[in-house]
Amino acid sequence: MTLDELAKRIDAQLVGGEGKTEISSIAPIDSAKPGQVAFLSNPKYAKELESTKASAVIVSTKIQANHVPLLKTADPYYAFSQAVVAMHGYRQHPHAGVHPKAHVEPSARIGERTIIYPGAYVGGNVVIGVDCIIYPNAVIYDDTIVGDRVVIHSCAVIGVDGFGFASHDGTHHKIPQVGRVVLEDDVEIGPCCSIERGALEETRIGKGTKMDGLVVIGHGTTIGPHGILVAQVGIAGSATIGHHVTIGGQTGVAGHLKLGDHVTVGGQSGVTTDVDDNSIMLGAPAMPVSHARRVYMIMTKLPEILQRVRDLESRLQNLEDAGDTPIA
Amino acid sequence: MTLDELAKRIDAQLVGGEGKTEISSIAPIDSAKPGQVAFLSNPKYAKELESTKASAVIVSTKIQANHVPLLKTADPYYAFSQAVVAMHGYRQHPHAGVHPKAHVEPSARIGERTIIYPGAYVGGNVVIGVDCIIYPNAVIYDDTIVGDRVVIHSCAVIGVDGFGFASHDGTHHKIPQVGRVVLEDDVEIGPCCSIERGALEETRIGKGTKMDGLVVIGHGTTIGPHGILVAQVGIAGSATIGHHVTIGGQTGVAGHLKLGDHVTVGGQSGVTTDVDDNSIMLGAPAMPVSHARRVYMIMTKLPEILQRVRDLESRLQNLEDAGDTPIA
Amino acid sequence: MTLDELAKRIDAQLVGGEGKTEISSIAPIDSAKPGQVAFLSNPKYAKELESTKASAVIVSTKIQANHVPLLKTADPYYAFSQAVVAMHGYRQHPHAGVHPKAHVEPSARIGERTIIYPGAYVGGNVVIGVDCIIYPNAVIYDDTIVGDRVVIHSCAVIGVDGFGFASHDGTHHKIPQVGRVVLEDDVEIGPCCSIERGALEETRIGKGTKMDGLVVIGHGTTIGPHGILVAQVGIAGSATIGHHVTIGGQTGVAGHLKLGDHVTVGGQSGVTTDVDDNSIMLGAPAMPVSHARRVYMIMTKLPEILQRVRDLESRLQNLEDAGDTPIA
Repeated sequence: MTLDELAKRIDAQLVGGEGKTEISSIAPIDSAKPGQVAFLSNPKYAKELESTKASAVIVSTKIQANHVPLLKTADPYYAFSQAVVAMHGYRQHPHAGVHPKAHVEPSARIGERTIIYPGAYVGGNVVIGVDCIIYPNAVIYDDTIVGDRVVIHSCAVIGVDGFGFASHDGTHHKIPQVGRVVLEDDVEIGPCCSIERGALEETRIGKGTKMDGLVVIGHGTTIGPHGILVAQVGIAGSATIGHHVTIGGQTGVAGHLKLGDHVTVGGQSGVTTDVDDNSIMLGAPAMPVSHARRVYMIMTKLPEILQRVRDLESRLQNLEDAGDTPIA
Repeated sequence: MTLDELAKRIDAQLVGGEGKTEISSIAPIDSAKPGQVAFLSNPKYAKELESTKASAVIVSTKIQANHVPLLKTADPYYAFSQAVVAMHGYRQHPHAGVHPKAHVEPSARIGERTIIYPGAYVGGNVVIGVDCIIYPNAVIYDDTIVGDRVVIHSCAVIGVDGFGFASHDGTHHKIPQVGRVVLEDDVEIGPCCSIERGALEETRIGKGTKMDGLVVIGHGTTIGPHGILVAQVGIAGSATIGHHVTIGGQTGVAGHLKLGDHVTVGGQSGVTTDVDDNSIMLGAPAMPVSHARRVYMIMTKLPEILQRVRDLESRLQNLEDAGDTPIA
Repeated sequence: MTLDELAKRIDAQLVGGEGKTEISSIAPIDSAKPGQVAFLSNPKYAKELESTKASAVIVSTKIQANHVPLLKTADPYYAFSQAVVAMHGYRQHPHAGVHPKAHVEPSARIGERTIIYPGAYVGGNVVIGVDCIIYPNAVIYDDTIVGDRVVIHSCAVIGVDGFGFASHDGTHHKIPQVGRVVLEDDVEIGPCCSIERGALEETRIGKGTKMDGLVVIGHGTTIGPHGILVAQVGIAGSATIGHHVTIGGQTGVAGHLKLGDHVTVGGQSGVTTDVDDNSIMLGAPAMPVSHARRVYMIMTKLPEILQRVRDLESRLQNLEDAGDTPIA
């Protein structure tokens, strides 16, 4: 492929380069060689443009450089992603359809072009759409509904029983979990995630939502479309999460809460209250982000603040003692 | 089934309804239709009783309602669980015994009516009791002892080596982990849990203890009977946890600690000291819950408190300065 | 084996015992019986030496005891580990080579004496060295490079796609992850870990690094040699971790950070800045450990500190009011 062809493909403008230059792959800006195209992810690393050996660098429209040809575009990260698709493509799968070492219960229905890798399990009455990829050793319990173009990575467990027990006379009695899980179209579930089926109702993951590894979703929870859940997030049961919600790694969300649309929660937070649309939250307990930053900054200075309180006490004592002294 | 039959089955009193009403399933109170029975989980949602279309609602004895028949009982959550069992039952398994796509080492012994799903692995010298369910791709390492009626969900790993290494001259030397794991009767282990075998001794999970997904239990730890461990809890090695202990999601417990009986620890806590019987703990580090609530409430107000300290410093300085002024 | 033989094997000096005493196994100090050897892990438990029934106890050179023979050595934990190796050895595997119920893609290459358990999956172009153990249901995605003597526990997922999406017009577009994972020699990966492949580059786990269960490593991250990562740690993408780094359980490390060599981070911490060589960090946000201990100690006393601020306000108000009073 030439730089001109790539520029056209990713809707970028080539500045300062020779359009006929042949390129073969995409590489990190600090290790790219001639014949490779790189990407400047963050303007603060712009000095990398002076030393890179890449044949061109994908950048935002406002970036300038003399030493290297630029592929300028309004949304460089998206252009980069399209460049990787154009030059590398997605994984070529070694098998089509259901691998004989997978196990699919006879009552399951699986759409065309869906790939079920060895070791994956698909339970009874499961419905899977077209063009899905179920990686090795992923497990889909009975009754789960999976849309089109869904990706489920290895050892993810979808539709497992919700964690529901009624305690009575000191013993925990299992409540049959008769709901199900619905994964809408274009969902991607990372490795070793657990998505619990509802007790009576659905657990639903909205269209286009992407989960990193080791995420847990409790029973009866709904995640809206186009969410991003980073690794090790845990969302308890019966929560309702809006669309375009981003939740940072290791964050927990308590049960029965409602998070609005376009909410962002930072990593390692603990959400214990409902959250309005468009809020950016951080901390445990989660607070609006600018307040949380101040709280944690002050928290790290507690030893100094305690000393200031002690100094105040001592100075005030001196004043009080002086006040007790009769004025001669 | 009729309302009368259900009432008898769950030991409830039907108030305001027609005992011969036919019912077919259990449903959430806000979506239930005629022919379905619902459950009021929390008195604060009592207004749902005015709008539900359910044929009856399971409630505690003190609840009143005019618009819908009630099934009154002393322990409504337990009655609800029994109603779900009565009307829906537990999962019907598609296979009996050991599925040919599972792998059971020849020296393992498996009790009657125990189901081993495809892809599950049972190692050498493992003993599994009767009426257990080992879901797809669960892994039971060698020497593990599993009681009766134990449920192990997919991709849980039982009896894996404890994380024990002796560091010497800058290298970590693996210590053979020659202990084992014992899961007592009626234990349920969630998906993607890891229960490590002891270095020399047992790791033991007490009768009736239930774990949600992605829980980690370190080597040599004992969890007493009838515990509840919510998702993503991590308990380090050589801890001793009493009976009827409940630990909230994402909480960590340090190694070698002793938690008493009937202890409750809130979510996202970090337990770093022994805990007495009947304590309710919260926070990182974990504190008695009422104290922890105050601590975190004040923590979120640290910017205001710092401002109050600054004001005090300024006012005190004014007073000190005034005291320095000679009285004319 | 006799005590003399064991002493020689672990480079210890037998004090107060009969060298010809026959011993058969290693056991915890509080449950050891005659014929067993125990280990005193911590001098504060030295009183166990008075009651143990062990035939000998492995201790550090400075420990004294009258009631039981001692095996004195400079590094007793290492000696203990060697004693367990000598007397118990490592797991005897029930199968050699690739088990027929595993699945290895034809383009993968697997070294001599490497064991692939049932249910494990090895993808295309994977290279695995000699003397490795791949436990049941572990998954190795395509292109992964695994060194010699590497251990991968059940349901660990190596080489899964990095969590990379470009958001454009409200939709998250998957970026092909064309990098790979390299596990160097002597690495051990716990159960249900996820090691993500790089977007363009490698994710690399250094020689001799050991991970407990449920650890997540983001794409493009490098962990240096001889690291210790305790359970449920999460390290985001593009981080660079030095050698001999120890990270406590449930700790998170943000992306693009650099942690130096010989860094230690306590459990449940949140590392949000670069960390210098040899630092010991704790807390969220992570702070130098002695400072963090003070911060958290003071944090638990915030209610008392707030009361002291209120008292100061009240006393100061009194003084100010007194100052307003005309002096008669």
